[in-house]
Amino acid sequence: MQTDRLARQIAFIVEIDKLKTILRRTPLTDESRRENSAEHSWHLAVMTLLLAEYAGEPVDAARAVKLVLIHDIIEIDAGDTFAYDVQGYLDKDEREQRAAARLFALLPDDQAAELLAFWREFEAMETPESRFANAMDRLQPTLMNHNAHGGTWRDNGVTQAQIERRDAPIGAISVTLGALVQEIIQANIERGYIVPAAKA
Amino acid sequence: MQTDRLARQIAFIVEIDKLKTILRRTPLTDESRRENSAEHSWHLAVMTLLLAEYAGEPVDAARAVKLVLIHDIIEIDAGDTFAYDVQGYLDKDEREQRAAARLFALLPDDQAAELLAFWREFEAMETPESRFANAMDRLQPTLMNHNAHGGTWRDNGVTQAQIERRDAPIGAISVTLGALVQEIIQANIERGYIVPAAKA
Repeated sequence: MQTDRLARQIAFIVEIDKLKTILRRTPLTDESRRENSAEHSWHLAVMTLLLAEYAGEPVDAARAVKLVLIHDIIEIDAGDTFAYDVQGYLDKDEREQRAAARLFALLPDDQAAELLAFWREFEAMETPESRFANAMDRLQPTLMNHNAHGGTWRDNGVTQAQIERRDAPIGAISVTLGALVQEIIQANIERGYIVPAAKA
Repeated sequence: MQTDRLARQIAFIVEIDKLKTILRRTPLTDESRRENSAEHSWHLAVMTLLLAEYAGEPVDAARAVKLVLIHDIIEIDAGDTFAYDVQGYLDKDEREQRAAARLFALLPDDQAAELLAFWREFEAMETPESRFANAMDRLQPTLMNHNAHGGTWRDNGVTQAQIERRDAPIGAISVTLGALVQEIIQANIERGYIVPAAKA
């Protein structure tokens, strides 16, 4: 009774259930466990709806939501690469390209092409929506670490310079959110959770 | 430096991190653990984007995505009520109204009113978007149980009549998806995971 089209859509929907088992380094704010990439993506989507007003260029929030919803699906095959893992970043692109080729191809051709294009758009950061989506993807773990006693900053001896480089896309698209990140960084230097520039 | 508006938005964003700790009854398809309401909401949002074409009435998918993204936030205070828990449903509405009043009020007034309206729209099922969003909310656990050896159906001796009542909103908005659910129900009666109508 199912058409081939629907069967492929359902196969993809069942496959992406696995994103719930891909763990990020970031802890939940109650510090009970590490966050997974599916719930992280949900958090980014809600943030996008609430904070789009701070973008310094016009952003289609509904479109940015689509980008954040699908941006991590490739991690089902490629795994999550920790933001401060230099080694992991060496083959990150190759792993992710292979993952995208397999995973999105589960879908009917038109939707496969659409989601692949969304993912590439997110990665390229060449549109207002992808720049804003990437800013949310940096701001969310910053908020989580700030509310979890330093989280991955504290656990990995991360420096102010590393965070400022990592979070640069936030200030690039929003003066207000960039200032918020600077406040958070200063507060966590004072609390001893971030290594300040002078000592790095 | 933060305005009161931004401070309220950030407070809400940090608060809703708790949705990741609200467990549903449904297992993940690898049966490693129960699903939480944040990752469930992400799954619904992606499903909405992929399956909106099957709606029997025009549905603004981007708007339906907003409804599914926020529909479970009230569970942070009210908890998840299992679909087949008759007792739990007695005070569900009162618990959820109180939760909505507290949680959305963390936001600036305009966004609080907007999200409260979205949540009420989802619950009322009086718009095409809310009917479709509710259909996704029923279809997703049906797909999960089907791919997890019967999941909550098997564990709770759920009957065909109970599932057909629970999943009625799916067939109401989409003939194709309604037929898919009937296929799944029949397959799981054959596998012994659903109690058929004749034996109930």
